[in-house]
Amino acid sequence: MDFSVTTVLLQLFVVFLLAKIAGYLCRKIKVSAVIGEILVGIIVANIFLYQWLGFDTDPGYMDVLEVLSELGVIFLLFSVGLETPFSDLRKVGKTAMLVAILGVVLPFIAGFAVIMFLYNNQAEALFIAAAMVATSIGITARVIGDLNLTHRVESRVIIGAAVIDDVLGMIVLAVVTGIAVGGESANVIDIVSSVGLGIVFVILVIVMGSMILPKIHRRRQEEYRQKCACEGYEPVRKSPRASNPFILAIIVCLGISLAASYVNLAAIIGAFLAGMVFAEFKEELPCEHEVQSLNQFLVPFFFIYVGMQVDLSAFNAETLILAVGITLLALATKFIGCGLGARSLGGKSAAIVGIGMAPRGEVGIVVATLAFSTYGLITPSLFAVIIFMSMATTIIAPPILTWLFRKKIESETLEKPEGTTG
Amino acid sequence: MDFSVTTVLLQLFVVFLLAKIAGYLCRKIKVSAVIGEILVGIIVANIFLYQWLGFDTDPGYMDVLEVLSELGVIFLLFSVGLETPFSDLRKVGKTAMLVAILGVVLPFIAGFAVIMFLYNNQAEALFIAAAMVATSIGITARVIGDLNLTHRVESRVIIGAAVIDDVLGMIVLAVVTGIAVGGESANVIDIVSSVGLGIVFVILVIVMGSMILPKIHRRRQEEYRQKCACEGYEPVRKSPRASNPFILAIIVCLGISLAASYVNLAAIIGAFLAGMVFAEFKEELPCEHEVQSLNQFLVPFFFIYVGMQVDLSAFNAETLILAVGITLLALATKFIGCGLGARSLGGKSAAIVGIGMAPRGEVGIVVATLAFSTYGLITPSLFAVIIFMSMATTIIAPPILTWLFRKKIESETLEKPEGTTG
Repeated sequence: MDFSVTTVLLQLFVVFLLAKIAGYLCRKIKVSAVIGEILVGIIVANIFLYQWLGFDTDPGYMDVLEVLSELGVIFLLFSVGLETPFSDLRKVGKTAMLVAILGVVLPFIAGFAVIMFLYNNQAEALFIAAAMVATSIGITARVIGDLNLTHRVESRVIIGAAVIDDVLGMIVLAVVTGIAVGGESANVIDIVSSVGLGIVFVILVIVMGSMILPKIHRRRQEEYRQKCACEGYEPVRKSPRASNPFILAIIVCLGISLAASYVNLAAIIGAFLAGMVFAEFKEELPCEHEVQSLNQFLVPFFFIYVGMQVDLSAFNAETLILAVGITLLALATKFIGCGLGARSLGGKSAAIVGIGMAPRGEVGIVVATLAFSTYGLITPSLFAVIIFMSMATTIIAPPILTWLFRKKIESETLEKPEGTTG
Repeated sequence: MDFSVTTVLLQLFVVFLLAKIAGYLCRKIKVSAVIGEILVGIIVANIFLYQWLGFDTDPGYMDVLEVLSELGVIFLLFSVGLETPFSDLRKVGKTAMLVAILGVVLPFIAGFAVIMFLYNNQAEALFIAAAMVATSIGITARVIGDLNLTHRVESRVIIGAAVIDDVLGMIVLAVVTGIAVGGESANVIDIVSSVGLGIVFVILVIVMGSMILPKIHRRRQEEYRQKCACEGYEPVRKSPRASNPFILAIIVCLGISLAASYVNLAAIIGAFLAGMVFAEFKEELPCEHEVQSLNQFLVPFFFIYVGMQVDLSAFNAETLILAVGITLLALATKFIGCGLGARSLGGKSAAIVGIGMAPRGEVGIVVATLAFSTYGLITPSLFAVIIFMSMATTIIAPPILTWLFRKKIESETLEKPEGTTG
């Protein structure tokens, strides 16, 4: 055994406790708890506690945290997928579709162009661009929920677009990984086959898990109901429930993640796809609550680990300027791209959609960590820049969104003739 | 990074899947799922898959499993403690108390005497004796529940005694650890102070967490109710609920486990005590369901890990004879000890109680693993013997218990005069 139980317990206890306190304080000031958890990681690794917790004496200790963080991000992406049922994708309107597509294309092109211009490194440019594509629906959804505005057209467009954005983001990530990881050999055929394999895998899982399986299931259900009707008794339940859907969810999640990493995709893409499949069977295989419980324990370790990877000494004047620049670019491209997509709703509503799609949140961070820790394809400075951008957009966007919503509602109230307001 | 995500995922996916399948098959034949999970571990490590899963190439991979197993056993003991509220201990009758005490004393003395006679090694004898003390209430409780006999006096005595047995077992473990671990220095004062510190810690946590805290809480609640009554409004809830009791449970569990290992106790004793504290606040701080979800993921890794530690080549003729002997001794001493304690219920009921207390289940395995993996105080052969004994008592006791219960009920039905049965 390379490590002592006492030291592991000490580390887990201290970082978990600090992360939860920081998360709690962040929520108090209406900022995502994720920000607090990452800050704890940055502080632990860069400012104090690192030596006291014994992380520097034995690399084995970082591995413990890394295992928990890896499991955390896998189940995190599974739960993101769980909120992205494929059947919902077809229901979203043209506007949401346009918002999502333009909100992916613009940030990607802008991010890629800027990093290529500055560093002339294709792998770095691809991953930075992919991280800029992400939209964290969780952040915006909470703001909308807090303001009690879920019913508004802007809210529905944002949520719909964010769902498509998640799927597009995963496809972009699959392509980028294929090019960047396979790209070391610089053989066009290798890259094309690698990218092709990844895309085929994604499509296969979606078609099988989210289209064919539900169809078979519905047909069976229908047959069962007809059989019941013929034999003259009421069906007890819509369909028999699996004895333990949560266990099945863990197995399918680990299995598809493993399969994804065999075709050179990131394991998290597999986890996301597994979540999408389970999203189709929410009624028959309910596991949201259990996954959430597991994630309350595991996910903080991911964000702490991300924070611990950030090297504050990488922040010189140049990096800081780049970080601010990338953040502004990330905000502007999402705002313009998504705003253009939603222009049919009118200027003010388009602005709301544009800013509502801006927070990168955990998804941007996941992509950056993948590029830095797993593939080692971006520099510590660029990693710090992307974490900065993800955190900054997540902090900046919500208050602006709240303000824009309030202004819009005020103007609507003013426009309305008196008497109809009561 | 010392390990590849793909390999870790492969290992976790395969062992988790196999463990769940084995557990499912075991439950089908009315055997505890734990048995199946351990068997998977034994098979993976001894027969095949070990090399294919890449465990032999890098010790870092065993560490991954060990971390998950360590967390699994901590939350397992937390959930055992969660079913052991201290307030229940005072409610159990004299009979249950007697059953528990005799059921601890007899196996301990017998186990210690036999191993001292055979190997003349104090540390080994102490830990084997401590492992023989354990009673796994989970196994018997399920049998009783399956037979629908929770209301019977034998069932209530068994459950009550098992609860006390858990607490006594933890105290025995604290003492044993103090003597065996501190005993290397062979200084009497060191041993006494080490044991004393451990016992003071256990008593302190129980008195603080399970007696003083609930008392303060009830007084506050009473004041709140009186205040409400004075000001003329109904109290909305009995008391305000914490925003997230599960997070609090994780923090307290890790914290007390850490504190326990600082006073040279096993971390699991701390986890058990933390569970006991939360058992007192089930209404105000409900976390059972969430802990259960977490455990469905983590605990199988503990039992797989236990199985993987078993070296089948350690089983020669001598070990096998010892294993069978220890198993018979374990069954006999619990049967006689607990039966004697319950003799006031009559012979047949005493036999039911005696056999109902016999399965060692997970608690015996936890103690053996602690002695072998964590402290390195027992030989691989003795470790294998204790795992054998724990599994055998867990498999043998339930069918005998069912048979004894059936016979008892039949005889009661026959004794009853006709007409009263309807």
